[in-house]
Formats: sequence, structure tokens, C-alpha cells
Amino acid sequence: MPNSQITIKDIAKALNVSVSTVSRALNDSPDLSGATKQQVQEYARQHHYKPNLLALSMKKRESKTIGVIVPQIIHHFFSSVLEGMMDVAEREGFNVLLFRSRDSFEKEQHSVQQLISSQVCGVLTSIAKETTHYEHFQELVDNNIPVVFFDRICVDIPSNRVVIDDYAGALAATEYLIKTGCHRIAFFCSPLNLEISKNRRGGYLDALSKHGIPVDKDLIKICDNYDEAIPVATEMLQSENRPDAFFAVNDETALGILHATKHLHFKIPEEISICGFTDGFAAIASDPQLTTVGQSGQDVGRSAMELLVEKIRHKGDQPLIKNKIIKTKLIVRETTR
Amino acid sequence: MPNSQITIKDIAKALNVSVSTVSRALNDSPDLSGATKQQVQEYARQHHYKPNLLALSMKKRESKTIGVIVPQIIHHFFSSVLEGMMDVAEREGFNVLLFRSRDSFEKEQHSVQQLISSQVCGVLTSIAKETTHYEHFQELVDNNIPVVFFDRICVDIPSNRVVIDDYAGALAATEYLIKTGCHRIAFFCSPLNLEISKNRRGGYLDALSKHGIPVDKDLIKICDNYDEAIPVATEMLQSENRPDAFFAVNDETALGILHATKHLHFKIPEEISICGFTDGFAAIASDPQLTTVGQSGQDVGRSAMELLVEKIRHKGDQPLIKNKIIKTKLIVRETTR
Repeated sequence: MPNSQITIKDIAKALNVSVSTVSRALNDSPDLSGATKQQVQEYARQHHYKPNLLALSMKKRESKTIGVIVPQIIHHFFSSVLEGMMDVAEREGFNVLLFRSRDSFEKEQHSVQQLISSQVCGVLTSIAKETTHYEHFQELVDNNIPVVFFDRICVDIPSNRVVIDDYAGALAATEYLIKTGCHRIAFFCSPLNLEISKNRRGGYLDALSKHGIPVDKDLIKICDNYDEAIPVATEMLQSENRPDAFFAVNDETALGILHATKHLHFKIPEEISICGFTDGFAAIASDPQLTTVGQSGQDVGRSAMELLVEKIRHKGDQPLIKNKIIKTKLIVRETTR
Repeated sequence: MPNSQITIKDIAKALNVSVSTVSRALNDSPDLSGATKQQVQEYARQHHYKPNLLALSMKKRESKTIGVIVPQIIHHFFSSVLEGMMDVAEREGFNVLLFRSRDSFEKEQHSVQQLISSQVCGVLTSIAKETTHYEHFQELVDNNIPVVFFDRICVDIPSNRVVIDDYAGALAATEYLIKTGCHRIAFFCSPLNLEISKNRRGGYLDALSKHGIPVDKDLIKICDNYDEAIPVATEMLQSENRPDAFFAVNDETALGILHATKHLHFKIPEEISICGFTDGFAAIASDPQLTTVGQSGQDVGRSAMELLVEKIRHKGDQPLIKNKIIKTKLIVRETTR
């Protein structure tokens, strides 16, 4: 442990001055002679003196550390969110303590306990896929630690939220597929305990309904990754009543569908249209390039951090819950007509 | 700030027992009656008592927090490294304080100062592209804070290191291109102040030399991203003496080259071969799928965290510097013959 670090007391002893003199010299106080100040500052520099943030935190009963829990890190959306959070944290002078749930309820609970014990001044989180109970988040609120949920929010806890406009994004994508002549539109989504899945499904269903297209339950699958999408899409494409379009909740799934569709030699987009959701680098690297609903993870991260910092600085002032909605944008490329 | 949290003193006062009784009850000490223990534990539970990790850290003069500085987060390799680090940190009971240099020397220096002030028990870092002076890292060593460098290491600081076998990876890729009939192999790399660039260039040059192919400096470019690779590769492909293969230091650059090559209607891999370095998701999503040197970022992250934890636990025991080399693997797909 870094116990070789020198303290203000050590400096005072070495230079035979008082602790308060050292403290004032280090704070560049005007009521001290230039010579003493210089002597103390020089000694501190030479001996690598650093203010002890741990001790300062204890003294002020506050920390400048914000806890972040993400489901995973190797993931275009969540790494973009983290990048956006860091932009604001750096600008506002906060440090980030990082936790990862790996979509496990148990790990998420453990992370929350660690964050309470670490006395972070606020928490940003997107809930795990497994999570259906929220008592651990309530404990943050009970401990007077502000929480902002982003993307995968928890509606049962009174707190600020930053969400992607999932409903509008899914509605726009599905309507675009309908307007370009598709009628049997398959929908690949994540488990429905997540609000984002419910909202994206809502947008899909409302677009069908608006255009008088009946819902075919066989076209709706719980499938949200590249590897699973390949066999599921292959089976659908080989069925008698095959779809003429696919809309997937993320780009990885859409690219799995694209792979299966190309493998079966269907013409894209003439016979089959495909639309994803995210707009990561892989959407541009794919051939044909993927049409997708663009969502800015960095905007989500920045907004969530900004809402949290505001909440930390004005504790008590704001009983209102703020919801920030980040707009999506349909990016038409080559996998749709 | 979470100043509503109750302390051991508060519990003692509320139940009219001594602080030491509360402390023993919370530690489940056997020399206390069951009834008292239960009463204290029940009260602590109801009032959300949490041990104050900040105070514990102060008391023990140690922290269970490891500082990590990465150049960026939205990046397949660095997000993979972070994921691997979290695997080991969780298993070993350490928390991670995250910093990001954005490849800026100034931000990197600032992050190091913050980590020293936060009294982290160790630091993992990959240096910024801008960095050519290393005094700030020496300060960590002077403060007795163990450091492990990963990927972009600093050879001037005595510390453990985890590196990708860049030289061998580049040598194998270039030899593969030569053996499949390519003779004019262009090389797109990062700035040469980074050890990884020097090593990958070394592998490329030695493969040429081994097979008696003269070096053509016009075929070596400092260019390491998708957007810049498109015009640079286009110009090269339109020149009289065009290359018949490209080897790039990362997949993004290789995919930019692929885009330019397809746009000019060259046949891949018959006329032009392309090989990347990383093996991210985009290498699979691209069409044709990208041949690339696979490097496991998660293995790098895990190894770096393991070396650091070992160093923290056995401080003073190990004067030897450990270098861990993570092997690469050439993954032949469709962009090479």
C-alpha cells in the first residue's frame, strides 16, 4: 500500500514549522512570507506530497466519485455510453468507479452494496437482463444516494432517467419497411422484462396496426444476438410463408439475419429487407451496408452524467423526476429498398 | 452526499449499548449474548447500516481500489481489455476506478495525479499516442504504487508488462501474404513512438527480408483508421505500381482499405489481398469476411490484472520484472488467397 506518502505533519516536522503553516503554504495563502511558502512548496514537490483525497473525503463527508454499473463493456452501445459519461465526469471533476453486472441479478445486487459501502455520491446504471426485483436500487434511494437510470430503466424507483426514444425509433423503422413495399415483417427482440423491448415492440405493433397489417405471432422471436439469429432466420426464410423483411433490436442480430439471408441467396433488398438498431461500426463494415436506427450512446452517457451531477449539486432542491429522451434517427443504407 | 448513513455510534446511542458491543455484534463475535447480537443486527439492517469503506481504508492505510487508464473506451480492443480486467477484479475483490487519456499526454498526466491522490493500491495503463515523456509514471513508482503496463508499454519504467506478441503476429501475417503469391505488400501503421507500431513494423520488414523482397518506402503509410484509409488506399490502388496486398495495424483500417478496393472494382482476394489486426466483430460482419491477426484483449486484461494483484499482495517480495506475452493467431477468412 502507498504508505510511503508523506503527510502535512511530516513536512511540518522536517522544516520545523507548524502544521497550519504548511497547510497555508500549500494553499498559497497570502498571509505567509514568500520565503516560507517557497521552502514548504519546494519540499512538498521534492517529496512527492499529494493531498490525501481519502482523508479529505472523510473530513468533508463527501466523495467526488460516481459509481457506474453497466451490463457489459465489450458492446458498442455500452462502451459508447461510458465514453460519453467520461466526457462529462472529466469536465465536472468527478471520478468513475466502474462495475459490471454481466446481466446477472446477483452481480448487480453485489455492485450496489459495494457502491453504498464506498460512499459514492451518485450512481448511474442500466439494469441487468435478469433483474425483475428492484429492492437493491431502493436501498440507494434510502441511503440518500442519487441514481439515474439510462437505457434499461427501472420504472418502480423514483429517480431521473435517460432513455432512447425506442418506441419512435421502432415505429419509424417499421413504417419505412411498410412504405417500401414490405408486408410480412419479422421482429427479433430481447426478453420482454426490459422496458426497451416493450417499447420497441410497441412501435413495431403500432406501425403494423396503423397500416392495417395483421400481427403474425410466428414472425416475432425472442432472439437478440448474431449467433442465435443465423439459425432462427434461416428456419424462417425456408418456411412456406416466409417474411419479406426483418427488423431486429440491435445491429448484431440484424447482421446475423443478413448472413443467413445471403447464405440462402436471397436478393437484398429486392426480396428481403433488413433493418437493425444501434448504428455501430459493423453496420458500415457490412456489405451491403446495414440500414439501422441510429442511437447515440455517447449522448445517452453525457445526458445521464449531466442529470446526475445536477442532482448531486442541488440535492433536496429538485423533488421532480426528470426524464430525458434521446432521439433516434433512421439511417437508410443498402439493406432496405 | 450520503450523510444520512448511520454509524456504529448512532446504533450504540439508539440501543443504549457501548460502541464496542455494536462492533462485536456486527462482527458476529461469540463473546456476546444472542439477544444483544440479534437486536443490534436487526437495528442495523432496518436502518441500512453499511460499513464505511472510506473509513476502513483510512484506518488500514490501504484501499481495495485499482486505477485503470485506457486511451479510449469505444474501441474493440480496449473495451475487451476492460472486460477481462473486470473478470479478475471481481473475482479477487478489487474495485476499478476508471480514467481515460483520449490519447492526450496532458490528460494522462492528470489521471496519474488523481490516482495518486485517491491512494489506489495499483495502476494498470496503456500509454497515450502523444506520450513521449514518462516522469508521471515514475511518480507512481516513487509513491510505491505498483504499475502494470499493457499493450502500449513504457520501457523506461521498471514495472510488469503485458504485451501482445506484435512482432510474431505481423511476421506471420506478412509471410502468409508472401506465401500466397503477394509481392508488393503495403503496410498501414500507427505513429512509430508506440512500441506496438515498432514491433509490428519489425515483423513486416523481417518477413520481406526473409523472403528476399526489397522494401518500398512508398508502400508504408502512417494511417490507422477507417476514414483516412479510404483515400490513402484509393490513391495507392490508382498508382501505376500498385500493391497486390495490404497489411493494416487494426481491423478498422483494413476495412477502410477493403471499402476502397471494392469501390475500384478490384477482385478480392484474386487481385488484392487484405489482412487486419485485432479480430473484432466487424471482421466477421464484413463481406468478404476479413483475414486478420486475432489478439485477445480479454486475455490481455485478465493477465494484466492478475500480475497487478500478485504484485499488490506480495509487495517487496518480487524485485524481478515480469513480462507476459499474449500470443496472436492468424485467422484466415476471405480477403486473402
